[in-house]
Amino acid sequence: MPQQHRARVTREVILQAAAEEFDRVGYAGAPLSAILERGGLTKGAFYFHFSSKEALAEALVRAQDEAWPSVRREWLARRLDPLRTLVGIVNEVVGLLARDVVLRAGMRLVEEESAAPVGLPVPAWDWQRVFEDLLDEAMRCGQLRADADPCEAARVLRGAVMGARVISTTTSGCAEYPARMHEVWRYLLPGLAAPQWLAEWSSS
Amino acid sequence: MPQQHRARVTREVILQAAAEEFDRVGYAGAPLSAILERGGLTKGAFYFHFSSKEALAEALVRAQDEAWPSVRREWLARRLDPLRTLVGIVNEVVGLLARDVVLRAGMRLVEEESAAPVGLPVPAWDWQRVFEDLLDEAMRCGQLRADADPCEAARVLRGAVMGARVISTTTSGCAEYPARMHEVWRYLLPGLAAPQWLAEWSSS
Repeated sequence: MPQQHRARVTREVILQAAAEEFDRVGYAGAPLSAILERGGLTKGAFYFHFSSKEALAEALVRAQDEAWPSVRREWLARRLDPLRTLVGIVNEVVGLLARDVVLRAGMRLVEEESAAPVGLPVPAWDWQRVFEDLLDEAMRCGQLRADADPCEAARVLRGAVMGARVISTTTSGCAEYPARMHEVWRYLLPGLAAPQWLAEWSSS
Repeated sequence: MPQQHRARVTREVILQAAAEEFDRVGYAGAPLSAILERGGLTKGAFYFHFSSKEALAEALVRAQDEAWPSVRREWLARRLDPLRTLVGIVNEVVGLLARDVVLRAGMRLVEEESAAPVGLPVPAWDWQRVFEDLLDEAMRCGQLRADADPCEAARVLRGAVMGARVISTTTSGCAEYPARMHEVWRYLLPGLAAPQWLAEWSSS
């Protein structure tokens, strides 16, 4: 293997091993030694790529930050209505999180631990803003119930998406996250969408 | 202070200090030394009451387990309809969690970390069961939408309650948890409750 390629592969192995450990026991619960052991890595190999466990967390948060813009862009390019776009984006993200431990560990760091005073990086990607913008547009298009508030609804949706992740992780394993999200839509959309949109959505 | 009373107070100080640390940085993020420092406690005082940090976590999980049966019992005794009983129980629990760091730390241990393989105790109290029983009864009383499923709805509600806790903790502080829960009901009940129940609830 050429040296540059080998270095890139090693970096991936480190990120994967860290993600698996953080996904299993959280950031604070995973000592660097456990990550190295999982990846079959020497300290030398690790410190060639990362200066510390904090730097690893930063790379994982950055990895998930970098994954979402293209998902959003592709769904916007389909030119569906704003509420269908929102549902599509969330479902694709949930599917990616269910399959990809690197993204899932990054998301867990963002949701549960970046607010804790342990020096973890703050994510650049702002789901509240993304949800709120689409809900604002849905409101203007008459797709929301007249009494809905895009800011509140975005917050409730974020909480429900998070809660579904925690429930699928702690009970049945993250593979069921998409099924849990499907349930969330079933119970949340009637409080959010205008009856006509809902009737069309249910029949499609 | 009589010796027995002093011992009880010291135990409370230890639990309070541990709860504040776990609430701030999670179980794995809080070393025993930080808990002792926060409580102004010597190791001797600590080990008189608890054998380890794990034993502390067990006491916190037990404290929240013991808090919920009386909340449920009192709401059942009011003989409201099952859906109002459910809303009442959840709102009271959310209010207690917002005010009481010991309960909140116990709940965080239960929700986020008891499934992780770090040997934390499994809670005895089963919210899924409590929610599902009340939703089953609400279904029999015709208070739910005909297409609602009590098991699914209970899971979605649990996720939404959890998500609202995480969002209020990481953004505005747990004091806003009741306001976040109020939003959850606003968007979740239309997907859950029969139109007639909803109309009565909205006007009350």
